Amino acid sequence: MSSLGEFDLIARYFKRPAKRSPLGVGDDCALLAPAAGMQLAVSCDMLVEGRHFLSTVDPARLGHKALAVNLSDLAACGAKPLAFTLALSLPVVDEAWLEALSRGMFALAEAHDCELVGGDTTRGPLNLCITVFGEVPSGAALLRSGAQPGDELWVSGTLGDARLALEVFRGTLALPAKLFEQARLRMEQPTPRVALGQALRDIATSAIDLSDGLVGDLGHILAASGVGATLDADAAAALIAAGADPANAAVLSPELRRACALAGGDDYELLFSAPPAASAAVFEAGRRSSTPVARIGRIEAAPGLRIVDAHGTAIVQRFTAFDHFRSP
Amino acid sequence: MSSLGEFDLIARYFKRPAKRSPLGVGDDCALLAPAAGMQLAVSCDMLVEGRHFLSTVDPARLGHKALAVNLSDLAACGAKPLAFTLALSLPVVDEAWLEALSRGMFALAEAHDCELVGGDTTRGPLNLCITVFGEVPSGAALLRSGAQPGDELWVSGTLGDARLALEVFRGTLALPAKLFEQARLRMEQPTPRVALGQALRDIATSAIDLSDGLVGDLGHILAASGVGATLDADAAAALIAAGADPANAAVLSPELRRACALAGGDDYELLFSAPPAASAAVFEAGRRSSTPVARIGRIEAAPGLRIVDAHGTAIVQRFTAFDHFRSP
Repeated sequence: MSSLGEFDLIARYFKRPAKRSPLGVGDDCALLAPAAGMQLAVSCDMLVEGRHFLSTVDPARLGHKALAVNLSDLAACGAKPLAFTLALSLPVVDEAWLEALSRGMFALAEAHDCELVGGDTTRGPLNLCITVFGEVPSGAALLRSGAQPGDELWVSGTLGDARLALEVFRGTLALPAKLFEQARLRMEQPTPRVALGQALRDIATSAIDLSDGLVGDLGHILAASGVGATLDADAAAALIAAGADPANAAVLSPELRRACALAGGDDYELLFSAPPAASAAVFEAGRRSSTPVARIGRIEAAPGLRIVDAHGTAIVQRFTAFDHFRSP
Repeated sequence: MSSLGEFDLIARYFKRPAKRSPLGVGDDCALLAPAAGMQLAVSCDMLVEGRHFLSTVDPARLGHKALAVNLSDLAACGAKPLAFTLALSLPVVDEAWLEALSRGMFALAEAHDCELVGGDTTRGPLNLCITVFGEVPSGAALLRSGAQPGDELWVSGTLGDARLALEVFRGTLALPAKLFEQARLRMEQPTPRVALGQALRDIATSAIDLSDGLVGDLGHILAASGVGATLDADAAAALIAAGADPANAAVLSPELRRACALAGGDDYELLFSAPPAASAAVFEAGRRSSTPVARIGRIEAAPGLRIVDAHGTAIVQRFTAFDHFRSP
């Protein structure tokens, strides 16, 4: 235990000149006001050691990830990041570790012009809880509930690589060193699709960010929208970044690819629906935000999820969501 | 471990019909907008088992306290509660425990018309992190930085009883059963001074809520305002609720009373400054909000804190703040 107390810790590692909040870190409350005509989008995610990250993780990557998973929720609503609060429970005060954590967190925060406005630090089992604030024009937020039969189903970026890395850590999978490092980076330092989310605001009919796995999170869109869908498992499995290198074909079986892409978890990509007539606009939104987008299915009126292969043949394998309350 | 998963848990214990947020619990973000001319006041507090509460605490009282300590921060800014998010890390899913936790939390939330709009649940060491949102007219928030030389120093309610109860739990103090139960209630179920905070908006020159102890928290006002103060230790010690009963005189030595009132921690009362000319208005604010208020000192231009007894004689004993990073 260092001699550094709670207030020194806040001042040393987490205080930055206030820009957006009239107060910033240090008073009882931070003060925020969205611009006229804007709503505030609010989301909150807690990361627990051993559950959401390994004790051995690079603290700079952990700082990045703790904020990234929250920014990903703003992205899914089409909101522009404004500010965040951080509550931190630490078993010990390790100054080098804290310096790296705050460096990783603020690098991402500054890239998105998102200001730390308040927080809390305490001693206890390692736990990071961030609440993030963004703004979105009133009535324009992307919701889970707007998917319409006939809409195409899209996903951003890559799928399944985080789960590949997790399985290597668990000892159930061996990957070549270079491939593992790439997958590990996707697991430890995900990219929140903030610019894409805002670009999709007037295009997508529904959106969600992928944290628990494609099939599970798609289920939330289907339930909220009162629709069903057909999902092309092979189109999704083709989005594993590790799969792009033919040298990895032997390591990544088709079954493993499907499982990781459909139920891997920790992807932090956007899953969204849009009418077929909007497909050019979706591609343009991807281009403007430098984010690859791909079609992986279709929304249908018939309830339920139908998973098919590239030939349209139904796949009977069960792909379940990653649930932080059930042991894997 | 129950078979109840993360999503069932949210739906069963924490979902309420949305009023204020257009979305409420369940989408990626909640959406909020303060009324025209209002700023949003935001605060965040994390409660860790063994640090902020004992494992044996009644979960209904814990639910109350987790929200109360956050509402207390809004009170210190003079903000009206609007909404909150809850992130919950649980070692096991105990349905009776969760039912009681949510019952205690929502009873207080409904008393203050404060709506749960989002959250996160995960498995891990027991940890509750709440971020609370209130609204305050732009520019009218009470800050720590406005205290002026000549101002009187006031405190609401009672002081030190939570610390008395903590010392009984620690085995360093024995109290008669009835007295212990009263003190324990102050520790486990504090009353956030929300109405008083709003009533003080145009009266107080500075305010803070007492979480770490009177002397430590007063230090934040003095530092932020660039002033000093003289504090009447005996006026503060007279505010111990347990001390009101003459039968307790033998148990509560003058030294113990001073220590608990000045550095007890966990009081969740408001400490504030106001010009002498406003003293009638302060008493009226207390009366309107049914909250006792008492004068315990004076703000002065000379830096530093001078602690005196009822005769104005300096007390040399050190009263330090309760710091969640230092072992008591």
